[in-house]
Amino acid sequence: MAVASLSAQQEKPLQIQRQGSFFVGGRDVHSDTLSATGARAPSGTVTIDQVYVRYQIPVGASGDSVTFIHGCCLTGKTWETTPDGRMGWDEYFLRNGKGVYVVDQAWRGRSAANPSAINRVRLGKGTNDDLPPVSFVSHEEAWSVFRFGSEYPKVFAGLQFPIEAQGELWKQMVPDWVEALPTPNPTVPALSELAQRLNGTILISHSQSGIYPFQTAALSRKGIAAIVSIEPGACPASGEDMRPFANLPILVLFGDYVDQSARWAPRMKGCREFVQAANKAGGRAEIVALPDVGFHGNSHMLMQDKNSLQVADWVLAWIAKSVEPRQR
Amino acid sequence: MAVASLSAQQEKPLQIQRQGSFFVGGRDVHSDTLSATGARAPSGTVTIDQVYVRYQIPVGASGDSVTFIHGCCLTGKTWETTPDGRMGWDEYFLRNGKGVYVVDQAWRGRSAANPSAINRVRLGKGTNDDLPPVSFVSHEEAWSVFRFGSEYPKVFAGLQFPIEAQGELWKQMVPDWVEALPTPNPTVPALSELAQRLNGTILISHSQSGIYPFQTAALSRKGIAAIVSIEPGACPASGEDMRPFANLPILVLFGDYVDQSARWAPRMKGCREFVQAANKAGGRAEIVALPDVGFHGNSHMLMQDKNSLQVADWVLAWIAKSVEPRQR
Repeated sequence: MAVASLSAQQEKPLQIQRQGSFFVGGRDVHSDTLSATGARAPSGTVTIDQVYVRYQIPVGASGDSVTFIHGCCLTGKTWETTPDGRMGWDEYFLRNGKGVYVVDQAWRGRSAANPSAINRVRLGKGTNDDLPPVSFVSHEEAWSVFRFGSEYPKVFAGLQFPIEAQGELWKQMVPDWVEALPTPNPTVPALSELAQRLNGTILISHSQSGIYPFQTAALSRKGIAAIVSIEPGACPASGEDMRPFANLPILVLFGDYVDQSARWAPRMKGCREFVQAANKAGGRAEIVALPDVGFHGNSHMLMQDKNSLQVADWVLAWIAKSVEPRQR
Repeated sequence: MAVASLSAQQEKPLQIQRQGSFFVGGRDVHSDTLSATGARAPSGTVTIDQVYVRYQIPVGASGDSVTFIHGCCLTGKTWETTPDGRMGWDEYFLRNGKGVYVVDQAWRGRSAANPSAINRVRLGKGTNDDLPPVSFVSHEEAWSVFRFGSEYPKVFAGLQFPIEAQGELWKQMVPDWVEALPTPNPTVPALSELAQRLNGTILISHSQSGIYPFQTAALSRKGIAAIVSIEPGACPASGEDMRPFANLPILVLFGDYVDQSARWAPRMKGCREFVQAANKAGGRAEIVALPDVGFHGNSHMLMQDKNSLQVADWVLAWIAKSVEPRQR
């Protein structure tokens, strides 16, 4: 789809067959330190590890749905309206006929974290080491992680991220409890539950969540139509069991400036090795760097870059070519 | 609208003119304890106090929009699909021609909290008393607060809450940092920014957030078309300055079983006194108990009760009668 057609398309009303939200996963736990101030009862049952899912199904939906899974320090907001106010991938995929599911990882956003350990220490029932590791990534650190430039506040030449709207991206960032969670992250079995419920969805991950769809496939292939891994923090190691990925369409997608990033260059190399190993074991995996297919200047936050909808078109074309002909 | 018409209406596709999400409020702060584990840089700038807003505008929207503000220990999910899978108020108001805005309170859901104090203590740079009060309300405590029964697990006769689907409600609950925040809550100036941006919205609060729209009106009346306060945790004290509420349509709405609740009976009494004081000062305030207008069995979570859409119809009729004739 050409850029020229986008604004007209944006103005056309959306036709939604149905929409809503629900949770997958979750378990009840007992705690005696739900509160440390007396404002609330300290003892009782709470539910944690669930994953919030918001969905929209367009009129005339066809093919497998897509499930968007955000990365570190962010929430499902990642995929919605961009920092500079343009259409997010959630609506764009919808306008292209896909059912769209957007999750908040376990312990993040609308998916509850458990603060019991904080209250336990406040009440003197634990030591400082019992406090959960909860990190918040600064603007300055995110700058190079998101590859806006080599270091804050330098900007790569030709960068597509709308850097003038960075303030809206910083508002998207939230504390990350991931270090307080087991491996696999509770998001993984929840994604498996979701895929089985949807009976055919393309898991589209980003960054930190990149490993989750692969771990989900290792749990069960049921309901997973394909994996699109946007700039994964890690791919499975090439020495791991590759059988879970046999005959599964997999796309690993990276943006620009990867070679200039000490963080991302080795990660992309590891993913190349994974793709080779998966294909050797009967896989259908591809790894693509956007500059190699004509897109230049993309950051780690490529779903928010100025050319985000052109990149989305490319991903939609990959799905049409690699996933849809194989459907039931 | 009769119950019979609802299922047909649900099946009709939604026509959305535009939708998306953004933030209001927010400020940059410096911290030297963003992380305590070395996984992330400890020092830098983060943005907090912002409020996440998701919105949908239907084709043919008319009148003022509505802004839904959730209560304690919950997020904007409150107003979406009910625990037993029925349409939430967010979609129902949309289907009735309203632009709909749904927020996550500051430091909750998709609106970032600041974990710096936790890391400061973990790093030995603070004492236990510096830990933020973060409470999680148990199922057992919520049971009576939400007036499902006098105490867990007793159920009031005729209760409209879909108690068989309680597990989905428990998954909606999240930790609450409200005790760690100043008064007024940062949500209040953010709501004022939102109202001014929308230039005419009806602030619909619930429970803990009940006081926020009143505090917002005290900051500025700009953009506030009306206040609908669903079971507010508190109304303004009758001795306070009532000038901010002069000539402002205000509805305070309570469910059933209030007289049987030591928590809620005095709160409703306080709100009755507020309504009298506001009206004496030129207000246009009303307080209504649902049983007095023919609805029986409603819990504190009345937007999720089995008769939630009938109650919504009543609220929509109140808006049509009390707010819309006064519009620009």
